[in-house]
Amino acid sequence: MKTKLTIVKVGGVIINDNLLFEEFMKSFSKINENKIIVHGGGIIASNYMIRLGIIPKMVNGRRITDSETLDVAIMTYAGLVNKKIVSNLQKLNCNSIGLSGADGNLIKSKIRKVNKINYGFVGDIEKINDQFLLNLLNSNLTPTICSITHDKNGQLLNTNADTIASDTAIAMSKHYNVTLKYCFDKSGLLMDQNTNTSIKKNLTKKEFKKLVENKIISGGMIPKLENCFKALENGVNNIYVGNIDIINTIDNCTKITL
Amino acid sequence: MKTKLTIVKVGGVIINDNLLFEEFMKSFSKINENKIIVHGGGIIASNYMIRLGIIPKMVNGRRITDSETLDVAIMTYAGLVNKKIVSNLQKLNCNSIGLSGADGNLIKSKIRKVNKINYGFVGDIEKINDQFLLNLLNSNLTPTICSITHDKNGQLLNTNADTIASDTAIAMSKHYNVTLKYCFDKSGLLMDQNTNTSIKKNLTKKEFKKLVENKIISGGMIPKLENCFKALENGVNNIYVGNIDIINTIDNCTKITL
Repeated sequence: MKTKLTIVKVGGVIINDNLLFEEFMKSFSKINENKIIVHGGGIIASNYMIRLGIIPKMVNGRRITDSETLDVAIMTYAGLVNKKIVSNLQKLNCNSIGLSGADGNLIKSKIRKVNKINYGFVGDIEKINDQFLLNLLNSNLTPTICSITHDKNGQLLNTNADTIASDTAIAMSKHYNVTLKYCFDKSGLLMDQNTNTSIKKNLTKKEFKKLVENKIISGGMIPKLENCFKALENGVNNIYVGNIDIINTIDNCTKITL
Repeated sequence: MKTKLTIVKVGGVIINDNLLFEEFMKSFSKINENKIIVHGGGIIASNYMIRLGIIPKMVNGRRITDSETLDVAIMTYAGLVNKKIVSNLQKLNCNSIGLSGADGNLIKSKIRKVNKINYGFVGDIEKINDQFLLNLLNSNLTPTICSITHDKNGQLLNTNADTIASDTAIAMSKHYNVTLKYCFDKSGLLMDQNTNTSIKKNLTKKEFKKLVENKIISGGMIPKLENCFKALENGVNNIYVGNIDIINTIDNCTKITL
């Protein structure tokens, strides 16, 4: 039987809130099995962009990344946020190592083709170096992966953190029994956006399609959940979506199933 | 006999000049033996600080690091500069991994005591995790270490890159025959600051003391060279100071000896 691996994607709202962040760090550090964090840090990047006089541009919840925006993304994701997480885990005796996709050639991506929209320096993932992650986990290290990848030709690329989490989960399911947890500011998939108790406890692919049709699921939740189904179809064992409580308990969140 | 390890400290002037940087990357990537890069990035940090409305404060060539300055240091050193080096090495088929002192608990430091000057969030090195570096080198990885360390209590600290280079060289001399190269914008130790050909080819500790007394060596060169002698006294085999040519050849630079 494969040993367990938990991959947690942590959202920017949690990273940006000192109390939530501290609580998240404590819970995560206590996970006994192998574990990986994946993070972005969009809110922090946007704040620095505004201070630097760069106007954040978003289309359908995705960031348009010009050269200056890319630099701020690299600085905040791979620098400020990544090292904040790693140093806090070290404090909690969790021996973490921060990684971008360039480090150890962890995530090779290619720049997104210009179709209707030119996303700029945004990368679509081509390959996750699962052997490298396996070696780190076998050395009792906890990888903290930020949402910056590279094209192996010297270009760093801004890459969606949800997708990095699900593609990493898929790649690692060769070696482990993988549980993927998307941790954000809501208790799960809400049927009524204004009521935090309206959690859908279980979401199947069929239900998902209907809820999208009926516009109950919309915006950024659509690609997030599509990533989940792709992961389940490609070897990932369990997926949960919810707030920071899901690190400890899965009683009050959304379980995604096929 | 111990195998060889080359540690190169690269200066901000080289990192900030696209042509010099490219040439440096090419030369470094061709070193056949085990290798490590150490870097800061002070010029880039200062540029961002000015854009963010933070006034850089220096005393005797050392940065006073308040909380905001620390964030910019983390962003530029551990983020922008570190990932620029790593992604460029990946392009050149050198499998590099970027590290701050928090990653893998690589460099534990303590905040500098307030004496005459309060340097703020500046760290003095306590311990280098040589076993972690050894494991990475044995996995054919090339560490790229930035000048950010941590106190193992959640606090990141700005730390002098020259000192990180010499302390890393000392720690690794247990395992390797270590050559340390300080690579900056001058050809070596100049006897006349205005003449790039006035290189002192060899500098002993005795000569160093005299040249400091006579004020021919001054400013930031003093702690840089003090680091060199400390390293030689603690097991490091060879130390050279010069421009990017010293990666390939040691014909035209300053060799430091006891």
